Amino acid sequence: MVEPNVTDVKKYFIDLQSNICDELGAIDGKDFVIEELNTLTGGSSKPRVLEDGEYLEKAAVNFTHSIGSSLPKAASARNPGLQGKSFEAVAISVIVHPKNPYVPTFHANLRFFLVDKDYWHFGGGFDLTPYYPFPDDVLHWHCTAAKACLPFGPDLYSKLKTWCDDYFYLQHREEPRGVGGIFFDDWHKTSFESSFAFVRSVGDHVLPAYLPIIQRRKDLPFGSKEEEFMLYRRGRYAEFNLAIDRGTKYGLQSGRRIESVLASMPPRAIWKYDWKPQSGSAEARLYEDYLRPRDWIAELT
Amino acid sequence: MVEPNVTDVKKYFIDLQSNICDELGAIDGKDFVIEELNTLTGGSSKPRVLEDGEYLEKAAVNFTHSIGSSLPKAASARNPGLQGKSFEAVAISVIVHPKNPYVPTFHANLRFFLVDKDYWHFGGGFDLTPYYPFPDDVLHWHCTAAKACLPFGPDLYSKLKTWCDDYFYLQHREEPRGVGGIFFDDWHKTSFESSFAFVRSVGDHVLPAYLPIIQRRKDLPFGSKEEEFMLYRRGRYAEFNLAIDRGTKYGLQSGRRIESVLASMPPRAIWKYDWKPQSGSAEARLYEDYLRPRDWIAELT
Repeated sequence: MVEPNVTDVKKYFIDLQSNICDELGAIDGKDFVIEELNTLTGGSSKPRVLEDGEYLEKAAVNFTHSIGSSLPKAASARNPGLQGKSFEAVAISVIVHPKNPYVPTFHANLRFFLVDKDYWHFGGGFDLTPYYPFPDDVLHWHCTAAKACLPFGPDLYSKLKTWCDDYFYLQHREEPRGVGGIFFDDWHKTSFESSFAFVRSVGDHVLPAYLPIIQRRKDLPFGSKEEEFMLYRRGRYAEFNLAIDRGTKYGLQSGRRIESVLASMPPRAIWKYDWKPQSGSAEARLYEDYLRPRDWIAELT
Repeated sequence: MVEPNVTDVKKYFIDLQSNICDELGAIDGKDFVIEELNTLTGGSSKPRVLEDGEYLEKAAVNFTHSIGSSLPKAASARNPGLQGKSFEAVAISVIVHPKNPYVPTFHANLRFFLVDKDYWHFGGGFDLTPYYPFPDDVLHWHCTAAKACLPFGPDLYSKLKTWCDDYFYLQHREEPRGVGGIFFDDWHKTSFESSFAFVRSVGDHVLPAYLPIIQRRKDLPFGSKEEEFMLYRRGRYAEFNLAIDRGTKYGLQSGRRIESVLASMPPRAIWKYDWKPQSGSAEARLYEDYLRPRDWIAELT
């Protein structure tokens, strides 16, 4: 039996970060910048960002290793006795804002939090935010998510898909952020070994879920109307990240390096007062056909 | 003695809204759109927005009259016995995002909240967010704010100036939003009559504070570098509105009409990873000379 440990998870996250940056960089033709930053408490971070690429307007693949001397109250709700204990956390977050409006914005995150052999958990998932969706892409995305979950239980995908729909929701707009994916938090099942195996499965499916979509759509011709709609919809992304996302809120409040926390922000965004898509347009179809909870796999196959 | 009443305040706010829209529209050459919306509870709102003008990229001057059947807990901290009582509130908010980076972004807000003759308060103020500030403009802005306050006490401007500096602060960036102005909340002094007179004085000084600045700077030539810096700094504005501002948070959470709540959002904004201004540049001067609390009137005269 493997004891819960940060070392193994860290190694997996760092390798995953390299793979993701290599593959995305190869598609784009531009490399991700490499930085290594140390924190005063002995932690470290490796933010890797690519801006103004050929296909990627902005992509950030960040790794963080946090070491804390006193477990925050918010993190110890499940076990209040541990409050004030030292802890460690490692996390990888991925965000891709493509240039082409036919390529969806993509987000993935995996995290591990350890106090001792009894108090630890994983969290994470991946979700997709298209502007001009193709049913094939959404189906591929959700099938890949389902594949990542299948070895860990027949109902797991469905549970994490609903969790994702619930989390990535803009209450103030009564709108989902996109077409979802999978999401899990406070994940502590059976053993560290089996939980970590599940998290690796999710991580291993991040690139297979996204790469075929960007490959298929990155060279589609588009005009200023499509670009403007993408920028308008990116406003929703900014609203979600700044006003709703718990990870960003925690980052803003906890004094983490702000440029890493906000590396997920869209490179450009616009807001138009009371704008609505024209009835029957491709833009209206996004709202009508995609921005509502659907059982994608059952409905699209 | 005038009893606290919504009617008088509403009339003043509606007239002020007209004046502001007329004057800004005259400068721009484009008119503000007029809308009248009624709420299910008997309230109403008049959002007035101008987009894509000659000088104003986006301006929103909104009036709202809210009628509530049950005082929210958050609003009755000063007098918990009133919780659940019916209440009324009227508010005017003004935001101007100019096209020219030499013209500052401008924000003003006034509000009145009434339960009964004992439980009421005003709130509001105005603040300025320049990109390429001119000392003359900042001095004019703060002198006008001081003039608005002077008849109501020799120390009032100084108190409300500090309040403004404290409120319009991005803790996560360790940066003020701009060069401030005046801010007050939960304002219930001596009598309704004298409090309302003070609020009128603030409202009457909104246009005198801003119009000379926009007139002086709106035709200055600028290039793409200046425009890009303005869009980058507008990212901070989006961060403040979505992640910090209490009015926006309340609006997002309370289910108010979202397009009115977010009419303050910048029409365009950009985020660049870990960007820093070049040492000695005009952009660096904004941070060094203006984005810190200063006693503008004493230092600039």
